[in-house]
Parts: sequence; C-alpha cells; structure tokens
Amino acid sequence: VSSRFAAVDWGTTNRRIYLIEDGVVARAERDGIGVSQMTPEAWPGEVVAIRSRFGVDKVLLAGMVGSTIGWRTVPYVAVPAGLAALAAGVVTVDTETAIVPGVSVHTSTRGDVMRGEEVQFLGAVAARQVPEDALLCQPGTHCKWATIRDGAIADFRTTMTGELFALLRHHSILALQLRGEVTADDAFHEGVAEGEKRDLAASLFGARAASVLGIRDDAAAASYVSGLLIGGDVAARLDGSKCVVHIIADAKLGLLYRSAVEQLGGSATVIDGEAAFVAGIVAIERRMQ
Amino acid sequence: VSSRFAAVDWGTTNRRIYLIEDGVVARAERDGIGVSQMTPEAWPGEVVAIRSRFGVDKVLLAGMVGSTIGWRTVPYVAVPAGLAALAAGVVTVDTETAIVPGVSVHTSTRGDVMRGEEVQFLGAVAARQVPEDALLCQPGTHCKWATIRDGAIADFRTTMTGELFALLRHHSILALQLRGEVTADDAFHEGVAEGEKRDLAASLFGARAASVLGIRDDAAAASYVSGLLIGGDVAARLDGSKCVVHIIADAKLGLLYRSAVEQLGGSATVIDGEAAFVAGIVAIERRMQ
Repeated sequence: VSSRFAAVDWGTTNRRIYLIEDGVVARAERDGIGVSQMTPEAWPGEVVAIRSRFGVDKVLLAGMVGSTIGWRTVPYVAVPAGLAALAAGVVTVDTETAIVPGVSVHTSTRGDVMRGEEVQFLGAVAARQVPEDALLCQPGTHCKWATIRDGAIADFRTTMTGELFALLRHHSILALQLRGEVTADDAFHEGVAEGEKRDLAASLFGARAASVLGIRDDAAAASYVSGLLIGGDVAARLDGSKCVVHIIADAKLGLLYRSAVEQLGGSATVIDGEAAFVAGIVAIERRMQ
Repeated sequence: VSSRFAAVDWGTTNRRIYLIEDGVVARAERDGIGVSQMTPEAWPGEVVAIRSRFGVDKVLLAGMVGSTIGWRTVPYVAVPAGLAALAAGVVTVDTETAIVPGVSVHTSTRGDVMRGEEVQFLGAVAARQVPEDALLCQPGTHCKWATIRDGAIADFRTTMTGELFALLRHHSILALQLRGEVTADDAFHEGVAEGEKRDLAASLFGARAASVLGIRDDAAAASYVSGLLIGGDVAARLDGSKCVVHIIADAKLGLLYRSAVEQLGGSATVIDGEAAFVAGIVAIERRMQ
C-alpha cells in the first residue's frame, strides 16, 4: 500500500508544507502565509492550490489552522495524549482533508493548551529521537515543556519566555539596551545565574541599573536579559533535578537553551523540529487509515 | 529663624510643587510638566517662573531633575544614605537653587538606583510615620523596596512590576483580556497565590489558557495578572518572613500591595507619599543651612 499526501504545519505567522511519499519527504516549502494572514473564505481555495501544486488528493493539516482563528475549530484532546488519541481526534473537512487536534491540560488547578507542537513532540518519540519517558522543550515565543510518559504527552506547560523578551526589546525602558545580538556568552551565563533566583521583575531593573552605573556594557545587555529569561524558565522546570531535556529547536535557540540547562545542572540534546514534525504527521496519518 | 522655600518633586512625567513655610505646606500644585517634557534650555526659565508664581527665592528640587535626562546630573549618594548624606550631596545650581541627589547601590554583585523616592523614604522616618529600622515599599512603574536601618537607607531594590503590567496590558497576547479594572478581589488573590510560585513566564501563559479553556472570565483577568505580578514581587521580598511592610502609595495601589502582603503572611501600613516627601525635603533643607 503506497501513501502519498501533503502535510501542512500551519502556524499563526508561517506555514511549512511537505509532500510525503511512503513516509519520506519528497518536497518541502515554507512561506509566510500563516493563519493570521487568512480570511475565513480563503481556506478552501488555498487548500485546493496546495493540492494542485503538490499533485496530491489527501491533505493533513496541523497547528493553529484548527484554532478559533483558523479554518475549523478542532476540539483539544486532553492529556494524556498519544498518537492514537490525536488520530482519533482528527476532524475531517471533507473525505480528503483533515485537521489534527491540539492538546489541553484542564485540571482543577490549572489549564494549558498547544496546537502544532504535539505533532513534533510525539513525532520525536515515534522516530526514537527521544525515549518514551522524557522531558521535551520547544522554545519560542511561547515555549512548550512537555512530559512524555509511556510515549504519550502526560502533562505540559507553556511559558511566555520569548514573548517577554520581545516585549522588553520593543517596548520597555530596556529597549535601547537590548538591540544587540544574543549569544551564549559570559553575559548570557551571568543572566542564567541571576534567572535561577526566580525574581524576574527585580532582575530586569538590575539590567537597567547596571547600564546607568556602568557595571555592564549595553552591548552585553541583550545576552544578559535573554539568559535571565531562559535561566528563569529552565530553573523553574528543572527545579533542582538533574534531568535530561530534549530540546526541539533550530541551532541558535537550541544552543541557548542547552547552555542554560547545562549551567543549571541538567543535560540536553537538541533535535530538529522539521524531522520531528514529519515523523509525527506520518505516524498520525497511518493511524487514521 | 523663619524658612520659606519652594520644593519640587520633579519626576519623569509629572511634578509636584510645594510652597513650604516653616516646615508646613502653604500651597501645592501638581502638573504634567515632567522632566521628559523639558528641553535643556527651558530649565532656568521654568525655575524663574516657579519662583515668581510662588513668591520665593529658594528652590529645592528632587527626582529625575538630577538625572542624565534632567537639568544637572547630580551624582548618586551610595548606601547607607541618611538625611545628612543627602544634604551633603546636594548640588547647587546657583545660590538659591539646589538639586537633591539620588541614591545608589553598587556592590560587586549588583547595582540599583533611585531618584526622588529617597526623599519620601527618609521623610517617612523623619516624620516618625515608620520606625528607624523598617522595610518600606513604594509601588509604581518601578517599585522601590528600601531597607531602613538606624534611620538611613541601608539597601534597596527596584522591581519592574508596574512596567511589566503595562507592557502586558498594551502589547502582549494578553492585551485584550487585560482591559478590565484591577481590584483586590478573589481573582487578585488567586493571582497572588500563583505569583508566590515565582514562575512568572509560565503563570502568564496560564492566564491565556484559562481564557481559551473558559476557566476564568476575561473580566477577572486584569485583577488576576496584577495579583500575579504583585504577589511575585512581595513573595520575593518577604521570602517567607512575616515582617511589616510600610507602603508609600495612593489609596488604590496601597490597598493592592497591602492585600498581597497580608495574604503572604506579612502585615502592612499604608503611608501618604506627599506628606512623606514634604517631611523629607524639609528635613534636608534644614540640614543644608
């Protein structure tokens, strides 16, 4: 039985389209036509265009396309959520078009949601890039930390780490200081050490005072504040344990998180997100048959 | 000996002018002519106008007027800083015009700065509104926490609590949720309890997820997020101790901080900032003679 379909990782601001033949990527495209660029009436035509461009009938969509700002609102699958639960929760738009659900945590004490990252997390497990019991991290604007147990997403937590950095860089009193590049340099490590104190509002003004008093060069401030935010995020997740964090990220962000994890006593691996997505969407498509 | 002078609490966006006769306020004005509204050449004329409007010769200025964006850059006085140190650090512009210095912390591990709040802190001590050994808090865009020992500012820390709330309210993914009023209601107290975990980046996204999942009404989100930020700030400062916090604030912000302090095991008093400023500037002016 041969399988051929287009898989789309359709996020808020970007999308990636993969032509998948017998579980292997035959062709890939990336563009800026994110969900926020779409109007409600544009969806059917856009998917017809993908079908025609890639010469396929079957299209499987994941990510924000299934949210309230997407094409169809696909209900979240509650944790624990494995590949079978995701496949069972797929919503079909027509016989050849389907949308993968997101995953939610909804207990008496807290709630959390993800859409798109679940395919990568479970894909990394399916491809044996990570063990069936593991802590996974996908950094970004909203960083996702998932606990995998018996191959399923048992729990997860989203942190606004990347968004906080962007807010500070563009709109805060620190904006002028934060124009530099972020690298895993000494200032970054100083930031991680400060971030471990988990006293963000105080530490941030410290970056301002360090500039006023000439304690730290403004060129180093971006790395310092990035370290502060990432260090605080990692410290809260490790909470003193020395576990392994499997980081799904591009090389640059992967290196920053890995450096912070290692500085705070853990160890880390960095996994490519596109390969994880493909492994996940192939595994879901197989379970739908 | 009778004393008559104008005292100006000249901040970044506002200023308050007091005509002080024998230690008592004879007249007060408040306007939006903050330091950021002034051009370098406008300072002398503006102070001449104050002199003429209030019928005084002597003018004593405090706050951001002494910063690099103010009239003259007045060097910070390092902690420990009492009234005598502030009076000794005053910079005279001419025989009748002087600017009070700010206070700095500059150790091997951290730096911090304040300009203007020091007059209120030491004024509250001079007026016996607080003891000579006390923890004081002045909430705001940049919240100042000062440790008073033997009547002097022994140490202090600035937190970006108010600025973070403004950034989130105006520019973040939470912006639409945060349009409501902030009051010390149940949602605020839930936020304080969450803030005590000192895991801000995660707790903030929790406010988003609570909206998506229908766990918390968006009308309550502003109080919740305010509680989260203030609770995190207070928890980091109390750090488990049951001390008394003397809060220098207007009634609304004073109530929020007081509620958070009491919820987290401390106790609190709320002190009026204008009276504290006047007590402080009178005490400094006396020491200059």
